[in-house]
Amino acid sequence: MYPSSLEKLIELFRSLPSVGRKTAERYAMAVLEMPEENVEAFSRQMMDVLRKIRKCPVCGNITESEKCEICSDENRDHTVICVVQQPRDVMALERLGQFKGVYHVLHGAISTVKGVLPEDINIESLFSRIDDNTKEIIIATNSTLEGDTTALYLTKRLRSYENITVTRLASGLPSGGNLDYADDVTLMRAFQGRIRQ
Amino acid sequence: MYPSSLEKLIELFRSLPSVGRKTAERYAMAVLEMPEENVEAFSRQMMDVLRKIRKCPVCGNITESEKCEICSDENRDHTVICVVQQPRDVMALERLGQFKGVYHVLHGAISTVKGVLPEDINIESLFSRIDDNTKEIIIATNSTLEGDTTALYLTKRLRSYENITVTRLASGLPSGGNLDYADDVTLMRAFQGRIRQ
Repeated sequence: MYPSSLEKLIELFRSLPSVGRKTAERYAMAVLEMPEENVEAFSRQMMDVLRKIRKCPVCGNITESEKCEICSDENRDHTVICVVQQPRDVMALERLGQFKGVYHVLHGAISTVKGVLPEDINIESLFSRIDDNTKEIIIATNSTLEGDTTALYLTKRLRSYENITVTRLASGLPSGGNLDYADDVTLMRAFQGRIRQ
Repeated sequence: MYPSSLEKLIELFRSLPSVGRKTAERYAMAVLEMPEENVEAFSRQMMDVLRKIRKCPVCGNITESEKCEICSDENRDHTVICVVQQPRDVMALERLGQFKGVYHVLHGAISTVKGVLPEDINIESLFSRIDDNTKEIIIATNSTLEGDTTALYLTKRLRSYENITVTRLASGLPSGGNLDYADDVTLMRAFQGRIRQ
């Protein structure tokens, strides 16, 4: 057994996603080898994040301001809402610099296996922000069972809004992907979604 | 870009071994989702480790006491010293419950590539603790280029101690390992170190 303070830190590292005992040990050891000021910064930053980061009351994205940067930006097109599962999905899409609309972050996805119901994620606030100006809802949930379930749920509920176009990100072969390396579901979707040239 | 407090935390996570940008983002997000008391515990524990953990003045292993548990234990055989690279190697060997001697932790290995010289690691204190009672030094450095270099260095310097047996952990096929999956160096060592049955 490691000294108890180290053992506790190892257990805390294990609470991070996909971190097992060995990795947690390596992380804790790395903390021991860090310069003192880095450990202090680490410790301080955790508390800082806890205190400063909040969810945007409009879209649910993380922010340090009252309302997030994107929702506050009048140059963005507030009539197009892109629905994503996580804040990091917003970052991924923003990196493209393509999308000029706004986002809605669900903070999860509906899952029958994990028992996550629509009311457990940030879905209702999507419907309450939809108004007469809303033109398009882009569903950009993951291409997984949970992402698909969520997309299906949203599509069904959005059907009653006749003036809103509902779209979903295309599924298919990833760029640079070999056909014979693609899994069956990906291949099937790429096939079904084939585009006339 | 993420909010700045989160961005800083992501950068700190990146300073952990083998953690890239994506993993660091996932960890920082996980911190956001943690119950408040866990984040506080995490923050506190980092500082706690910084304050409490020190190196044993005898063997260099990490400890919260003046002298580590193993060095303080009179039931252990202090005439046999097992030299390892890292504190986690001590844990690995202790888990076996086989070895009843004491350890010496180098906190690194000699590396020409990384420019780590013998004086950069905890080697001199090994020679200063050797006395007339010392019977055996077991070199248990990793079976890597750096571990081998360190073992060679130690073996050479220990040659002048005529009454001390110097041994090294056996190299060979890992248990359960298929011969045809073994890399060439492993296979060569297993072959050279073959044992008469």
